[in-house]
Amino acid sequence: MTFELFYWPGLQGRGEFVRLAFEATGTPYVEIVRGTGPGQGLDGLMQTMDDPDCVDPPYAPPFLRVGDELIGQTANILAYLGPLLGLVGESPRTRRWVNQLQLTLADLVAEVHDGHHPIASRLYYSNQRAEARRRTADLIEYRLPRYFDYFERVLAHNPEAGGWLSEGAMSYADLSLFQVIAGLYYAFPRAMSGFARAYPRCRAVHDAVARQPLVAAYLKSPRRIAFNTTGIFRHYKALDRTTPF
Amino acid sequence: MTFELFYWPGLQGRGEFVRLAFEATGTPYVEIVRGTGPGQGLDGLMQTMDDPDCVDPPYAPPFLRVGDELIGQTANILAYLGPLLGLVGESPRTRRWVNQLQLTLADLVAEVHDGHHPIASRLYYSNQRAEARRRTADLIEYRLPRYFDYFERVLAHNPEAGGWLSEGAMSYADLSLFQVIAGLYYAFPRAMSGFARAYPRCRAVHDAVARQPLVAAYLKSPRRIAFNTTGIFRHYKALDRTTPF
Repeated sequence: MTFELFYWPGLQGRGEFVRLAFEATGTPYVEIVRGTGPGQGLDGLMQTMDDPDCVDPPYAPPFLRVGDELIGQTANILAYLGPLLGLVGESPRTRRWVNQLQLTLADLVAEVHDGHHPIASRLYYSNQRAEARRRTADLIEYRLPRYFDYFERVLAHNPEAGGWLSEGAMSYADLSLFQVIAGLYYAFPRAMSGFARAYPRCRAVHDAVARQPLVAAYLKSPRRIAFNTTGIFRHYKALDRTTPF
Repeated sequence: MTFELFYWPGLQGRGEFVRLAFEATGTPYVEIVRGTGPGQGLDGLMQTMDDPDCVDPPYAPPFLRVGDELIGQTANILAYLGPLLGLVGESPRTRRWVNQLQLTLADLVAEVHDGHHPIASRLYYSNQRAEARRRTADLIEYRLPRYFDYFERVLAHNPEAGGWLSEGAMSYADLSLFQVIAGLYYAFPRAMSGFARAYPRCRAVHDAVARQPLVAAYLKSPRRIAFNTTGIFRHYKALDRTTPF
């Protein structure tokens, strides 16, 4: 089975949640926009997405091609890959639970994005700076604590040892929680300065994921695109501020 | 199997996507906030959501209780109910596809919400009127056409007859598409005046769902809460405007 990942070049974005699932499990995958063959590169992405004959077109990247099937929406891709890559427990109930956690993380990711783009994702940040300051202040003061209170509570109540979100093993939701926390440290170093003290279990998931040998190797490799101000997590000094935690 | 639905009182909100799945299939369900027994009403909702002993707490309503399991996140609830209620095809590929469509609808719903709350969901609309005008203008001029171009394309390319999003039968994604279109007609009557002409296949899904006998009966019943300005779809005259379609 060949996994072909279609995502924009030059940014981690939502594609990174899928990359982490492949990288953490040592699963080969093709990054279409980095290829130079026929049907690859950015043109390959656009042609595949806009193919008028496609019966299951994705709305937007990231999407995966497996055989003749296109699979879009990050949480949907991970719900598909999780069982194949051993990144989710066996029972239907566990799979629903991990999907639920992933969707809550997706909501948080969308809120972080809208912090710097509260008016229109189509416009530049520079066209919505004042609104971005107001929205990001609310994000940092109210929304981040609300989400991390929740994930800390989930971690504290997991009846199985190991410190993971679900059962006693790392799932794709743990990989995504790592990515969100890493992104927030990049974007908001002032706001995040007290994070490890306020949310020790969440921080421990971040650290445990980063220490996985395959993840650690990936993070040091040229395949890991650096955080930058074209992605979801952006460091704009004007938006960072101290937090209540 | 008893399905207990936990959602806020007095608004359709995201709970409505779940209600429609029950109502369209004649499936009995308990609306917890409308009950007066022990563990019911708004107190019952809050106590269940905040129960410190809960091992699978939802982040927010809507959530379902089935036996001792809580199932949160709208798309996750529908992915669970779809097979049980006959609202999705049999194959894993079809289930991924319908889940993908539902997640794209969920993204649209979040964008519609943020049209009237671009700065903070915690604050009143009256505290973010100017920003709401800018964001809703972008929603109406650029985002709605982008989403409905997509759904119209999906409907046009479905190889099976019937006019539904997936295969030849109504799925929970069709019910959700109906709800989104109905909400937009309420919120933006000016903007939506050309909708049926621009997006005839989407409009046909809306009409076909509304004509289902069980749905038609539900829409006329007191169980269907009227659209109002506390939900996701809100009619504020200052935000409505003509569209390019």
